[in-house]
Amino acid sequence: MTGHELETVSSKRQAQVDAVLDRFFSLAKNRATSFGADYVRLWETLESNTVGGKRFRPRMVMTAYDGFGGTDAEAAAYVGAAFELLHTALIVHDDVIDRDFSRRGAPNVSGSYRDIATTAGIPIPRAEHRGISAAVIAGDLALFNSLRLIDRSGASDTVRARLLEIMDEALFASAAGELIDVDFSTTTDVPRVHDVITMERFKTAVYSFECPLQAGAVLAGASEDAVDCLGRFGREIGIAYQIVDDLLGVFGSEAQTGKTTIGDLREGKRTVLIAYATSTKEWPLIEHLVGKPDLNHDEADYIRSVLESSGCRAFTEGLARNYTNEALAHLRTTDIPAALRAELEPLAADLLGRIK
Amino acid sequence: MTGHELETVSSKRQAQVDAVLDRFFSLAKNRATSFGADYVRLWETLESNTVGGKRFRPRMVMTAYDGFGGTDAEAAAYVGAAFELLHTALIVHDDVIDRDFSRRGAPNVSGSYRDIATTAGIPIPRAEHRGISAAVIAGDLALFNSLRLIDRSGASDTVRARLLEIMDEALFASAAGELIDVDFSTTTDVPRVHDVITMERFKTAVYSFECPLQAGAVLAGASEDAVDCLGRFGREIGIAYQIVDDLLGVFGSEAQTGKTTIGDLREGKRTVLIAYATSTKEWPLIEHLVGKPDLNHDEADYIRSVLESSGCRAFTEGLARNYTNEALAHLRTTDIPAALRAELEPLAADLLGRIK
Repeated sequence: MTGHELETVSSKRQAQVDAVLDRFFSLAKNRATSFGADYVRLWETLESNTVGGKRFRPRMVMTAYDGFGGTDAEAAAYVGAAFELLHTALIVHDDVIDRDFSRRGAPNVSGSYRDIATTAGIPIPRAEHRGISAAVIAGDLALFNSLRLIDRSGASDTVRARLLEIMDEALFASAAGELIDVDFSTTTDVPRVHDVITMERFKTAVYSFECPLQAGAVLAGASEDAVDCLGRFGREIGIAYQIVDDLLGVFGSEAQTGKTTIGDLREGKRTVLIAYATSTKEWPLIEHLVGKPDLNHDEADYIRSVLESSGCRAFTEGLARNYTNEALAHLRTTDIPAALRAELEPLAADLLGRIK
Repeated sequence: MTGHELETVSSKRQAQVDAVLDRFFSLAKNRATSFGADYVRLWETLESNTVGGKRFRPRMVMTAYDGFGGTDAEAAAYVGAAFELLHTALIVHDDVIDRDFSRRGAPNVSGSYRDIATTAGIPIPRAEHRGISAAVIAGDLALFNSLRLIDRSGASDTVRARLLEIMDEALFASAAGELIDVDFSTTTDVPRVHDVITMERFKTAVYSFECPLQAGAVLAGASEDAVDCLGRFGREIGIAYQIVDDLLGVFGSEAQTGKTTIGDLREGKRTVLIAYATSTKEWPLIEHLVGKPDLNHDEADYIRSVLESSGCRAFTEGLARNYTNEALAHLRTTDIPAALRAELEPLAADLLGRIK
């Protein structure tokens, strides 16, 4: 396929997923009216937190589905939408845990409800608490309904049961990863590289890559061996994505990532990059700066230069490259159709292109 | 049935639900081992938060199921366990919203994890935050798996679809009620009686009475008319229960309720009793005391005496009696088998006995 064709396929798939989500939220908002206008607003807020996303997980589902010759685009769109809703639930509750009130520059559910409260004259601590409370509820609704959407995909009994198992694995792993992440942020110790990778794999890679790819393959009736290979690819490429994300959080440009590149450093976020840095002899040079809430741009530049000169950046880039190559190796089997491989390989190239 | 026979039936049902939950948690803990010992502990903590409950919702499921002649006790136990897990999810997240660290005198999930953190030397604000974070995750797992247990009940496709709809309605209503409750606690205004009843109906009565009774009936293959009548009974009796709970929170004994009878008054909890009191001319006598965090026992006694003399207690008791009678009226139809009616009527009598 040419780049243009890929683009067309991709936007067609996204439109199908958007249509499922539109329908789902319309029904929910309609149903909510008998519970009062405030409840309708909660559903609207939840919906607006799913709009504008890259529909990354649905794209994984649908790429795998098409790749294995699936022809029921509607069913794939439902399964894709289920993963999108699972993703929404997880980030809404992750923001509750992190006490974050915005995501990518816009108010999230907590932020929207905090702002409604402050506008009504409610002072900040109570307004924030109200925002967080609404987000707990909204996340529950998204989580519960992610499973419900699988049911509405119209898949056969056996396939449905497998899809639910895959969704189950996605949440099971993500909860384990979130718990490890909570532990990271509770202690002052910086975790080891291996532990950060484990956390990122459980928390994000499994539900964002491994499971959506497997779900698409299962829905298309792929063999267990094929589902297995694709899952392995997803796991490895998912870890690579997280590592690249960690790198971009420090070395990326705001235009590239849509978020500031000083936030992670101010927060002292436990990334692979930082975990590795603590093991180098240069760490004492920047230890007092990483996690400094009022870090200025000169100090951030200094951290970056130390991370460069000490080889931390190169090591982390090498790690991302390694996981990407391991991922690609899983595609080189006759179990994976050539066309699917041809669609997934650019994903890896694109990923590595972002850190070059 | 005699009281003794009822007791035997009840403990047999409870043992069946306990067996399902035991099995579910064993599998989950086993599966969690590959994610690390901390994750196993989260599952253990969640499990211990389901043990020792009255299994009230499962009992509703199984009473309806047996009442309509259902014979697959195992299936009913799965559906009962699903409602128990939904209940666990909702109270764990309700405690997150209320920032409560204990329930009925014992640490809840937030409390257990806060205590683990303080024991490890982590100071209080951070330890509390860790506790709440763990509870967000644990509640998500319980919520998600409540739906999964319906799938494992072995019900036919049509029945399963109806059961999932009922669970869906349970969560949909409860989330709406929780949102109203959050609004109540955010403003200083005391809501009107009608609004408190609406909140309590959505937040608790629907998922605790209406839906479990309907689910049991559906699983047993009852007619739609019968399911409908039973649902109406459940809704009305559920409201009556909440009103009685509000009364016991102020006038009950600690032996009766298992919680202090000063807590609700110190918290200024928005109950039917207090909502009604604000409309009486005696309200100014106690307004400054209701919600006083350090309320002492003499002051609490004074509030109680004013709630008595102003007729607030009598009004609220009358309201509970009225909802109970409305509930019972829904049972007086040929759609409801006599044996089922005979088992549900004592529930109402018992309820009213608690406020006499």
